[in-house]
Amino acid sequence: MENERMNWKRKHILGLSDFMPYEIEFVMDTARSMEEVLSRDIKKVPTLRGKTVVNLFFEPSTRTRTSFEIAGKRLSADVVNFSYSGSSQSKGETLLDTARNIEAMKPGILVMRHNASGAAQFLSQRLSCSIINAGDGSNEHPSQALLDLYTILKAKGKVAGLEIAIIGDILHSRVARSNLYCLGKMGAKLRLCGPATLLPREMSRTGATLTNDLREAVKGADVVIMLRVQLERQKSAFFPSVREYSRVYGLNEDIFSLAKDDAILMHPGPINRGVELTNELADCSRSLILNQVESGVAVRMALLYLMAGGAHAAD
Amino acid sequence: MENERMNWKRKHILGLSDFMPYEIEFVMDTARSMEEVLSRDIKKVPTLRGKTVVNLFFEPSTRTRTSFEIAGKRLSADVVNFSYSGSSQSKGETLLDTARNIEAMKPGILVMRHNASGAAQFLSQRLSCSIINAGDGSNEHPSQALLDLYTILKAKGKVAGLEIAIIGDILHSRVARSNLYCLGKMGAKLRLCGPATLLPREMSRTGATLTNDLREAVKGADVVIMLRVQLERQKSAFFPSVREYSRVYGLNEDIFSLAKDDAILMHPGPINRGVELTNELADCSRSLILNQVESGVAVRMALLYLMAGGAHAAD
Amino acid sequence: MENERMNWKRKHILGLSDFMPYEIEFVMDTARSMEEVLSRDIKKVPTLRGKTVVNLFFEPSTRTRTSFEIAGKRLSADVVNFSYSGSSQSKGETLLDTARNIEAMKPGILVMRHNASGAAQFLSQRLSCSIINAGDGSNEHPSQALLDLYTILKAKGKVAGLEIAIIGDILHSRVARSNLYCLGKMGAKLRLCGPATLLPREMSRTGATLTNDLREAVKGADVVIMLRVQLERQKSAFFPSVREYSRVYGLNEDIFSLAKDDAILMHPGPINRGVELTNELADCSRSLILNQVESGVAVRMALLYLMAGGAHAAD
Repeated sequence: MENERMNWKRKHILGLSDFMPYEIEFVMDTARSMEEVLSRDIKKVPTLRGKTVVNLFFEPSTRTRTSFEIAGKRLSADVVNFSYSGSSQSKGETLLDTARNIEAMKPGILVMRHNASGAAQFLSQRLSCSIINAGDGSNEHPSQALLDLYTILKAKGKVAGLEIAIIGDILHSRVARSNLYCLGKMGAKLRLCGPATLLPREMSRTGATLTNDLREAVKGADVVIMLRVQLERQKSAFFPSVREYSRVYGLNEDIFSLAKDDAILMHPGPINRGVELTNELADCSRSLILNQVESGVAVRMALLYLMAGGAHAAD
Repeated sequence: MENERMNWKRKHILGLSDFMPYEIEFVMDTARSMEEVLSRDIKKVPTLRGKTVVNLFFEPSTRTRTSFEIAGKRLSADVVNFSYSGSSQSKGETLLDTARNIEAMKPGILVMRHNASGAAQFLSQRLSCSIINAGDGSNEHPSQALLDLYTILKAKGKVAGLEIAIIGDILHSRVARSNLYCLGKMGAKLRLCGPATLLPREMSRTGATLTNDLREAVKGADVVIMLRVQLERQKSAFFPSVREYSRVYGLNEDIFSLAKDDAILMHPGPINRGVELTNELADCSRSLILNQVESGVAVRMALLYLMAGGAHAAD
Repeated sequence: MENERMNWKRKHILGLSDFMPYEIEFVMDTARSMEEVLSRDIKKVPTLRGKTVVNLFFEPSTRTRTSFEIAGKRLSADVVNFSYSGSSQSKGETLLDTARNIEAMKPGILVMRHNASGAAQFLSQRLSCSIINAGDGSNEHPSQALLDLYTILKAKGKVAGLEIAIIGDILHSRVARSNLYCLGKMGAKLRLCGPATLLPREMSRTGATLTNDLREAVKGADVVIMLRVQLERQKSAFFPSVREYSRVYGLNEDIFSLAKDDAILMHPGPINRGVELTNELADCSRSLILNQVESGVAVRMALLYLMAGGAHAAD
């Protein structure tokens, strides 16, 4: 590893807003080592033997929870899943009490998802174990942004200077927010695109270009990241209808052809086929959607490894 | 092992319709080795260390999911459970996208149950990992038929020439269908019995005898396999009422006494006591219902072992 | 260990009503050894390698199920969770059939929770594996009482002679019942307190003092154990309203100040803040509520260890 003598100092991964570029690079380097482990026939190392990782998920999740579970097990950690349904939450317990109880069982690392923005930070100030934020409301989803970066680096060899368009419901997207920090810090030129109701003007302060015009966002882009339309959350009307949204902001081959010839397409999943992008695009050779999932395991192994073994471990 | 130099060539276990008898025998031999492991105090071998088995269940299941989980863990695999509730399916993701996502996390083996017939085959043509079908709609449930065979062989010493009655909702039963293939290939003489609406005439092409008369089906039988009345699926009226069904097709001691003196009774579970068979029969010494469950772990260890280590592994 | 040459003879832990004091002490000694393991960086020992622990929970649970799962994994057992939702129970299977099926898969130990009093004993008479009762209706919850004792011993150095008040819905509380046995046998002086409808008079036969007056119960106590108001079960009106209950039987700092100066406060969780005790008390330095959770893992490791390795193992 390039930075192998760096000591990892963070105890928690709450978000990427305050990450330094060299920290992000260190995660990437560590993830590359993990990817090498995953290329072996026996995809398992004893690194976290005897450590307990608790997945504390207050929102339904498939890929993220499973990805962390597989990542933990491949590092030989004991992984314990705790999900909302059937939990004490239904008995009226507060988040803090639930989390304190789990902490009292001495997990090394708590991986958590919660629908309240700031939930991970809130707990990090009150618990002594390491916390990885696996998504908190519309705030951050740092492991997703790191795996997106990993996927881009693997495909493009670099990220600095790339034109990267993020398209969809920017306002509510923790994926967009974490990517804005992560890719921005690494030197990408970001374009944010969505309907005016879902594209907060103050985001221009980040240095990103804002537009409501999908074609303008895609034109000449190296990377196009489509966000999921969260149909299940679409109660208050931020746009007239899914059909209307899809007509104006759905990506199809015509529009994607405006991007660079070697542009890649990404999406954090799960995909609404026919809504934010067409079937043809989802499955085309330039779609790296499944590469993202694959990168996810390596990146999450890296995060668990760094949390468990970093300098903070002596705290 | 008798066949120990045979190389296992199948990558998937989708159903038994195209199995050759020597393949079935090879699974039985392997299961016997596994049963020996299960007789030890430490019921665990390191065979699948570092392999990940994902249980992908889109239908509720107790025994099958747990049986595969225990089988996997006793081979030292990492087992990850993924069940419908709380999954991306509730967010509208397609089966294929869900499965592709899991595949991208590189499980060695995917064990899956789905309510659509053909779901396992569908995925096997589109994914690169090994798939074991743990029940697809009304099509096949191969591990159940293999454990039924194992149970019969253990009790009777042979299966060829035995008169085996399968009784109940033949039309919708994946257990019946897989057993028809499995036991038929191994030389059993099969009798299928149920109400006319649930006993498709074309099944006579399999060589099985068809009858709507329970007494006729049971008379002189060596093995009686009662199918579960799937009360929870009984929406369209294939029979007038559960009570009426039970009166005509429920097994009691009087009727079971028409079978051979040493006849054995089987049922894939869960039992509806008082519907398809009486309490007395369910718990009698000739009932091998729990032996089937016990055999299940050995047979599923054998399948996981063969999937993980067979010749196809070099694919 | 003081008693290290004692042979543990119990096959099951169903309740503490028939425990001898030396058995309780033996569990405490064993739990102390386990706590030492938990103080290590690698909190894991190979003691139960190759053993399977099944968590069979028919009621929702967070801390107890997770506590047993973590306890099992730290002893290197394979832990399989089975919860009500998605199970065969929804297909109408009886408890006994469900349990017999799981037993046929040869778990070493079944940890079970069920809403019927006596469910654990019922199964213990019909299954061959070891059973730990993790709560059966309003009967017993032995591991909770043992961890309560462990917590008291750790804080106070002794339990004999201590004045211990248990306050709340005594009638329906399995925690109260198990504590009455456990703490009583160890020489504590018990005071039971609650509204008349929830405080059965016949409990005075245990030697405990009964009172409906919270102040009287708390006055001069060494330990105050508040029970959870089970809001979700409060259908039949044992008390007029939660608000009224809280006004009369909720603990606040004023009332707790009537206890001894060094009195400790306990609660089995999950807490209803503002109902049975105030926020201030829940979080005060004399509240050992999280210590109880921490003790729980050590005590449950001790129970699993004793079940798996005791003299009965040769049965």
